[in-house]
Amino acid sequence: MQGKADHNYDYTLMAPGPVNLHPKVREILSEPMIHHRTPEFDKILAQALKRLKFVFQTAEPVYMISSTGSGGMESLLVNTLSPGDTILAVNSGKFGERWIEMAKTFGVHVDELKITWGDAVSADVISEKLKTKAYHAILTQACETSTGVLHPIQKIGEIVKAYPGTLLLVDAITALGAVPLPMDEWHIDGLVGGSQKAFMLPTGMSFVSFSKKAQATFANSKIPKFYLDIKKEIAANSKGETFFSSNVTLTKALNFVLAEVEKQGLDSLFKSIQRRADFTAEMIQLLELKSYAKVKSASLTAVVVPEFIDGQKLRELIESEFNLTLMGGQDQAKGKIVRIGHMGYILDEHLHQLATALYRSLEKMGYKPATAFEAYTQRLIDWLKTH
Amino acid sequence: MQGKADHNYDYTLMAPGPVNLHPKVREILSEPMIHHRTPEFDKILAQALKRLKFVFQTAEPVYMISSTGSGGMESLLVNTLSPGDTILAVNSGKFGERWIEMAKTFGVHVDELKITWGDAVSADVISEKLKTKAYHAILTQACETSTGVLHPIQKIGEIVKAYPGTLLLVDAITALGAVPLPMDEWHIDGLVGGSQKAFMLPTGMSFVSFSKKAQATFANSKIPKFYLDIKKEIAANSKGETFFSSNVTLTKALNFVLAEVEKQGLDSLFKSIQRRADFTAEMIQLLELKSYAKVKSASLTAVVVPEFIDGQKLRELIESEFNLTLMGGQDQAKGKIVRIGHMGYILDEHLHQLATALYRSLEKMGYKPATAFEAYTQRLIDWLKTH
Repeated sequence: MQGKADHNYDYTLMAPGPVNLHPKVREILSEPMIHHRTPEFDKILAQALKRLKFVFQTAEPVYMISSTGSGGMESLLVNTLSPGDTILAVNSGKFGERWIEMAKTFGVHVDELKITWGDAVSADVISEKLKTKAYHAILTQACETSTGVLHPIQKIGEIVKAYPGTLLLVDAITALGAVPLPMDEWHIDGLVGGSQKAFMLPTGMSFVSFSKKAQATFANSKIPKFYLDIKKEIAANSKGETFFSSNVTLTKALNFVLAEVEKQGLDSLFKSIQRRADFTAEMIQLLELKSYAKVKSASLTAVVVPEFIDGQKLRELIESEFNLTLMGGQDQAKGKIVRIGHMGYILDEHLHQLATALYRSLEKMGYKPATAFEAYTQRLIDWLKTH
Repeated sequence: MQGKADHNYDYTLMAPGPVNLHPKVREILSEPMIHHRTPEFDKILAQALKRLKFVFQTAEPVYMISSTGSGGMESLLVNTLSPGDTILAVNSGKFGERWIEMAKTFGVHVDELKITWGDAVSADVISEKLKTKAYHAILTQACETSTGVLHPIQKIGEIVKAYPGTLLLVDAITALGAVPLPMDEWHIDGLVGGSQKAFMLPTGMSFVSFSKKAQATFANSKIPKFYLDIKKEIAANSKGETFFSSNVTLTKALNFVLAEVEKQGLDSLFKSIQRRADFTAEMIQLLELKSYAKVKSASLTAVVVPEFIDGQKLRELIESEFNLTLMGGQDQAKGKIVRIGHMGYILDEHLHQLATALYRSLEKMGYKPATAFEAYTQRLIDWLKTH
């Protein structure tokens, strides 16, 4: 078994966020600090805000918040809902749970749609629920990061749009920019993304947008808020500023990433991420392993590890021996899965590194795939050449 | 009049935040992204959290929040107060105003101590107020960024400590790490700092700490909160993690800055910032200009510009001709002052750049100081050599 010294791999991050950074992003992060009240930054801010609309695929404004993704999730709730409102919320994993706890904290009544971990929600079930009760909002992840599941947002949007009093709020932190989620076309009323995911930046910013239907609720929303009050940001953005101190460094890097995305085109970006997911599917099939998610998001693959192997130890071994960070499972999936992220700056050499690391580490922990290492490697080299 | 091409200055930021970055900070920001669930980051996080206590001069834990300073200000309120509580709040400028508006948003009754812009609050007035009414908290800036004033926090702490039911909450965003503010010794119950100020980092993080007296209010505080709920962070920190995704990049850079501060010592750091303030005082005296603040904070100097000069235009001229960003005035001080920051990575060459830029730009706008440029420059060169 070769150690780190033999492989001499650079450190590679293939987690479902944070992700490997583009070299140019790293360069921008290291530039001298400029002030947010300068003509130079004014221009960058205006460009970034415009380009965010391209990724959200919306005609509505997109707002930047200096917070982790959870701050953005909270923004969707506190700007549109009031204490005493009733919502229907999908709970298919850790981030569904968190959003529900958040809503309850602000006095919102939650009907929980509890889904077995690894399963996707059924749009039909949501449709039935909506027929029996008036909900102020439907909450769902687009991709549940803890399980790698992709939920049928388009179908849910088609259903919810018929209810004028119901908003569709979507946590797309591990999905936006990685899989198609056209906000306007799919009738999404609140959408949140996170900087350390498909936006390929460090952690520290969330992005939110609201449909006209959602904007109409701002005036009546009675949850007290200040830092996350989007009305302040609307007023500031209209003057070409942010209300709170601008996150200059991340905004500059964001503007670069978004310019690249514009050049590449969303379809091409989605395809490149889907290709990494397909590669991973090929790889785990060769390893005779299975995906934890019944309906997989292209943004990450949760792989069920062999029963006698502790997924946490597998992940630690891969990290210490191959300088590659994957993620383990959380809560009920802890030890049972490893999660491989497909977002960020990932080259084919990283995919080779992944393939070798996973095979050799499984082997070291006593798991012998039927396909020998050489044949496995060759198959994956060929796959990358032909896809 | 020489233009930018003649001077060929690097871009220099001497605003009261964000500030010039240390070259090593810029290098750290450009490092490959690592995951927050790695042994490497665990160690950095533990070190940074411990070192923050050194800057806060407290035995209590300090918490990091992914937010601008305003998020940290909100954290102090929402974790300790309840709707219906009554507080006394100093309003001596824009940030006092903001904090009061914030408190009111969360249903807190505010008795406002309105201070003329440029004046410091009198501790005696606070003492008198406390004798007439039971306040759940006293809110004050340490330094009011919009005016450059330093408030008498030590004296206020001595007064408030006698009231078991009253917390002293201090917004020290433009003061912590720049001027002495020993939290425990001065009986401060809630203290907030910001990354882009004396912590010499990009915008995006705030730091908060609470005295035992303040911690005792957490359980009874009834303002709904989730993202800013410090109880979640306490639980996570006790396991060596942050509750929300760690701000990996800023935490790494923070840890470097704090290690440097530890090495240098707080007294030495404060002295170096005070020296820049003293230099600025010497400079504006030679220019026959005055400080806007009656009691000046070492973190910045607000300079009253000659009456016939528009401070905004002066600042723009300095930026375009000398590649140096100062700040203008806000609200009622707009156009009347320029604000010069003394925090961050500032070398003597930057002070020379400042001296030249300010003199030549004032001159260009029609202001003739009695001291000729050559004598002025020589005086300041001598000053720097002897201080």
